Amino acid sequence: METVIVKILEEPELNNPIMVEGLPGIGLVGKLAADHMLDELGAKKFMELYSPYLPPQVMILDDGTIKLVNMELHYWKGKKNDLIFLTGEFQGITPESQYLLSEKILDLSKKLNVSKIFTLGGLGTGGITEEPTVFGATTNKGMIKELEAAGIVFKGGGAIFGASGLLLGLGMLRGIDGVCLMGETHGQIIDAKSAKAILKALTKILDIEIDMTELEKKAEDTEKQMSQVGKIISEQKKAIKKQQEFIEETPSYIR
Amino acid sequence: METVIVKILEEPELNNPIMVEGLPGIGLVGKLAADHMLDELGAKKFMELYSPYLPPQVMILDDGTIKLVNMELHYWKGKKNDLIFLTGEFQGITPESQYLLSEKILDLSKKLNVSKIFTLGGLGTGGITEEPTVFGATTNKGMIKELEAAGIVFKGGGAIFGASGLLLGLGMLRGIDGVCLMGETHGQIIDAKSAKAILKALTKILDIEIDMTELEKKAEDTEKQMSQVGKIISEQKKAIKKQQEFIEETPSYIR
Amino acid sequence: METVIVKILEEPELNNPIMVEGLPGIGLVGKLAADHMLDELGAKKFMELYSPYLPPQVMILDDGTIKLVNMELHYWKGKKNDLIFLTGEFQGITPESQYLLSEKILDLSKKLNVSKIFTLGGLGTGGITEEPTVFGATTNKGMIKELEAAGIVFKGGGAIFGASGLLLGLGMLRGIDGVCLMGETHGQIIDAKSAKAILKALTKILDIEIDMTELEKKAEDTEKQMSQVGKIISEQKKAIKKQQEFIEETPSYIR
Amino acid sequence: METVIVKILEEPELNNPIMVEGLPGIGLVGKLAADHMLDELGAKKFMELYSPYLPPQVMILDDGTIKLVNMELHYWKGKKNDLIFLTGEFQGITPESQYLLSEKILDLSKKLNVSKIFTLGGLGTGGITEEPTVFGATTNKGMIKELEAAGIVFKGGGAIFGASGLLLGLGMLRGIDGVCLMGETHGQIIDAKSAKAILKALTKILDIEIDMTELEKKAEDTEKQMSQVGKIISEQKKAIKKQQEFIEETPSYIR
Repeated sequence: METVIVKILEEPELNNPIMVEGLPGIGLVGKLAADHMLDELGAKKFMELYSPYLPPQVMILDDGTIKLVNMELHYWKGKKNDLIFLTGEFQGITPESQYLLSEKILDLSKKLNVSKIFTLGGLGTGGITEEPTVFGATTNKGMIKELEAAGIVFKGGGAIFGASGLLLGLGMLRGIDGVCLMGETHGQIIDAKSAKAILKALTKILDIEIDMTELEKKAEDTEKQMSQVGKIISEQKKAIKKQQEFIEETPSYIR
Repeated sequence: METVIVKILEEPELNNPIMVEGLPGIGLVGKLAADHMLDELGAKKFMELYSPYLPPQVMILDDGTIKLVNMELHYWKGKKNDLIFLTGEFQGITPESQYLLSEKILDLSKKLNVSKIFTLGGLGTGGITEEPTVFGATTNKGMIKELEAAGIVFKGGGAIFGASGLLLGLGMLRGIDGVCLMGETHGQIIDAKSAKAILKALTKILDIEIDMTELEKKAEDTEKQMSQVGKIISEQKKAIKKQQEFIEETPSYIR
Repeated sequence: METVIVKILEEPELNNPIMVEGLPGIGLVGKLAADHMLDELGAKKFMELYSPYLPPQVMILDDGTIKLVNMELHYWKGKKNDLIFLTGEFQGITPESQYLLSEKILDLSKKLNVSKIFTLGGLGTGGITEEPTVFGATTNKGMIKELEAAGIVFKGGGAIFGASGLLLGLGMLRGIDGVCLMGETHGQIIDAKSAKAILKALTKILDIEIDMTELEKKAEDTEKQMSQVGKIISEQKKAIKKQQEFIEETPSYIR
Repeated sequence: METVIVKILEEPELNNPIMVEGLPGIGLVGKLAADHMLDELGAKKFMELYSPYLPPQVMILDDGTIKLVNMELHYWKGKKNDLIFLTGEFQGITPESQYLLSEKILDLSKKLNVSKIFTLGGLGTGGITEEPTVFGATTNKGMIKELEAAGIVFKGGGAIFGASGLLLGLGMLRGIDGVCLMGETHGQIIDAKSAKAILKALTKILDIEIDMTELEKKAEDTEKQMSQVGKIISEQKKAIKKQQEFIEETPSYIR
């Protein structure tokens, strides 16, 4: 089985596209930001990525149909640059698969002529702040001045885990410029404020305007959905775990 | 080593076959249902599937011979459709192997011209009910009306884990219709009532009649077998674990 | 890297060879038995098997040189049948690797024209007995009578884990006859008595005589070595674990 | 994706090179020693090795740019022998990957005509000593006398884990001579004294002189950096873990 099964829905002609990654991570900051931005811009889904390195599960949608967990690419035609959004419900579930998936996404990026990647995430501090700082890290020292002009703070130290880090690190080996924007966040809560701070900086850099009104609501909805659905899922998970122990203890009970 | 070693016992000509999956899961609901149905119909084993992604163990049968753990396919010649039952003692033991095994089963399904897959499972609620609801989820919105007519309830939310989910999700990418039937169940007990509820719905859809008398007994037998065998296995497991720790602590004790 | 790196020391001509497996397992019963038997017979090492599925470690020998952990094959020229002993310090460390290693050993067995495999192990009961029963399980029902005549007890139920099970289960798929001899044992101690019981049965079947005097001593030596070496290793392991946590907590401390 | 992505910065002509491995391990003894030695000698980086078997993370450097975690080779032109230093922030993160990475490094060593490998590490004793002994283990009995003359102590027993062991064990299968030098150390602290003891022995064997003044400072700096950065990282890690549990509990919260 391939590392990634790519389902192409459309093959848009893209003009000097920039990729914006918003997979789930700390405080869901990056995911909230990317999901909100693609919704506001009306970006269009053109690729679905399925992989054995994502959790082995399907979601049951509101209409009773199912959806295999995946990553998705949406595009938006901009003035200067077109944008490609990389979003999804999960990141790769093993350390090795993080690398494999990031490599595949970089393969796709190359085919799509992506010139630059912005990865979005949170920087967990354990504290709560009204005005979250947006920290930056980049593959290209030459870009720092411009990014600082948009209010992004560069300070050394720390590390970036998962896709937000690897797309930069592995991209660098291929000569793709990358920037990670990290919104200051508590770490244990879904943080719309931090997502907003990131989006302000990102839209300033990209010279795009988007409405932020729905962002707070999106975070609330997400929170509500999570607590509702959470109960069902958690009950299922408990049952699965119990069942597995049960079966493992008694592997020869059948027939 | 191949993902799956296929041992073909017979190559039946099958007429528009429908696959029914009943691997172990929550409350053993799906497994009990499928095992009972294939027994009642007198379905015939025609394929054995062995895999390094199943646990590394053999069972000792009553006659002193051994059986390597596997998945099996049985077929039954019906009026409208022939049926293929997918059953086994285990599911793949890693998330990735869940995908790999489901893909292999879908490869086989294609060769066997399977047009539709029913996956059977339990939906753990943590509560006990006398009249378990059968919940459904499907790859094809067009099928919902017919399924609701058979008493199956569709409501959004939640997720389906393992083979019951992946055969649908990965099958959908290949254009195979799939339905998951989930019997409401406590989650921590072997639930014949829930299996019965599923079978009532499934046989109604398939227009087949089967006797349910033995189902309750099967669940009891399973329970009894499990508690008897469980003691031996559990003692073995404890010993293995201890031994492994022992060996790991002292890797250089030999020679 | 290959699943197994085979280092051939000698290519003996073997007459109708029977393989005896004694890798570490419950009570070290199988390992003790096989190691003692090959020592007593003066069997000669002819193959070393190295694998990335064994632990990543070397042992420091008494003379200050090192030995990469491995599995080894020894042969002994018998009257009726030659014997091949499969021994080693470890089994494969993941479920999947258990399958991969057993397949490789069966590949080798085929090349060596092995007609039958005896796998040796312990059956952990949690109790202590003066006269340990030897339980059997086999791939070939036709062999049971002969084995029972040597005092081996066949009763259904339970499972065999690891190489002792898989060599039989996977061997069966290739048409190789296999028998597992399991000595009754407590499970948490190194059990020379149980190893002796197995050897009595095995040598009776094979019509070979070996001296058992040194077996008790071998178990004592093993125990002593383990407790001495155990302290050093355990200190190293603790340090490694601490270090790893340390490093993981602070991945960016360098440069 | 390849086991290792090799980025070649320079292709130096090396004269009879000896490899010195100092990857992180017990007490960071080997890493401290190798890092200090290459700094003092002014060794020059000529190869970077990236791998999906290293942790999926990038470090944020002081200037705001990022660095994908890797292993690196530096060379130094000596009188008798040139030296190649193998250093890095991490070892392979799974047992199997330890083998795969060591094999790749040995492939490179062969291309670079490495004739001998010194691996550096700590031997954790749980105690603190003022004059740490340097213990040795080797692939080649013939080398012991010379090594003992440099004050290295050979005593049997124990095991060597990870790259320091495998480079010797796997190298032995390819006919490459190897020596492991293990500095006596507590195991739970970063130990400059033990690193110094190793370096004294190693430089004596190699007939090289290096200044040790900065070594103590390097250990202190490392300790300080670790405790500073540690707080940030640890907060991030906590947040990631929480987030992952959160997401796993509620896999269907999106859209």
